[in-house]
Amino acid sequence: MNYKAFVFDAYGTLFDVHSVAQAIQKHFPNKGSQISEVWRSSQVHYFMVRQLIGGYVPFDELTRWALYDALSKNDVEPHEETISTLMKQYEHLSPFEEVRDLQKHYPHHNLTIFSNGTKSMLEPLLENNQLSHFFSLLSADEPKVYKPHREAYAYAQKQLNVGKEEILFFSSNPWDIAGATQFGFHTAWVNRQNQKWPELGIKPSYIIKDLNEIPE
Amino acid sequence: MNYKAFVFDAYGTLFDVHSVAQAIQKHFPNKGSQISEVWRSSQVHYFMVRQLIGGYVPFDELTRWALYDALSKNDVEPHEETISTLMKQYEHLSPFEEVRDLQKHYPHHNLTIFSNGTKSMLEPLLENNQLSHFFSLLSADEPKVYKPHREAYAYAQKQLNVGKEEILFFSSNPWDIAGATQFGFHTAWVNRQNQKWPELGIKPSYIIKDLNEIPE
Repeated sequence: MNYKAFVFDAYGTLFDVHSVAQAIQKHFPNKGSQISEVWRSSQVHYFMVRQLIGGYVPFDELTRWALYDALSKNDVEPHEETISTLMKQYEHLSPFEEVRDLQKHYPHHNLTIFSNGTKSMLEPLLENNQLSHFFSLLSADEPKVYKPHREAYAYAQKQLNVGKEEILFFSSNPWDIAGATQFGFHTAWVNRQNQKWPELGIKPSYIIKDLNEIPE
Repeated sequence: MNYKAFVFDAYGTLFDVHSVAQAIQKHFPNKGSQISEVWRSSQVHYFMVRQLIGGYVPFDELTRWALYDALSKNDVEPHEETISTLMKQYEHLSPFEEVRDLQKHYPHHNLTIFSNGTKSMLEPLLENNQLSHFFSLLSADEPKVYKPHREAYAYAQKQLNVGKEEILFFSSNPWDIAGATQFGFHTAWVNRQNQKWPELGIKPSYIIKDLNEIPE
């Protein structure tokens, strides 16, 4: 493999965003996965809308809004205290089990996270999972442009200081893979749930079932 | 009211996108509304993603892709013939019942549609519903920038040749209202289903329950 940089999306790719469902479940029995699903889909919808309409809002703020709406939509009173408790869970998401083997799969390589999350969300998440030493960290919060806007990937490339085509980017999120591929990265779609690739007029370089599968 | 232009979103606002559910139901019993829901949500997701990653794809093409994916996700073989038949339904969507009263509510005013749809989709839709004489037509396909990107609304304003604040824009879609408001139009969110306005850091000028309610 001739890639010089291995770059990973965080939410959904390295960390299971739906691992919050258990914590939610404790507060609202039988509503854990429902609320978690709406929380994530609203979060994604909101950063896309905000990126399109202009006026940057940080990811933690958008994530809080999405949670507020996910609770309301599921007939749960969105108390400030509940929201703060559940937001805290975003610093305790579980990594997928293969994550700790990444350094075995890509030895002698610098592994980088490139996420829409702010560093103030990502740093405690890595720390709480004893993963801080594994990854360098790039956040879309630095240029204030969210993935999948092309300028976000341009920022990451500039920071990595290598050619577009020397980057292999991993994500579970099709919108993220579409943006990175369109920009010119090589891409690996991590398709853990054996889903169909959506018709977006663009295809990943590789499709892998999890991070243990090495794209080639 | 001192507005000089009354501008309407088409899909979801003047026309019920879920009126296709019946036609789908005929082909796939018990799956009409499920498929219709995924068709619409994928369509919206896809034009946002394409707008963000760059490389314009026309709305009819995206709508076809979204239908393909909606069928697959609902375990229906996406035959080319089925897709063509159902795509044709997009030219036969039902207008909401208040639409024919709009000229009564806003007499002596030019009413304009501003839609992400191509004119080749919108013209037959208006014609099939005997509504062609009601509306002038602006399409995001002309500047090749989708709403809710600010440049889309800028294009509409330029074509209307009035001040931003002289435009009253109606939409049922919160992402559309958010974009138009952020750009500087006055906006009326048509909230037929009595939903909660999403936390997007921005609010409509008016919230109305349907097009019979006149914002003031």
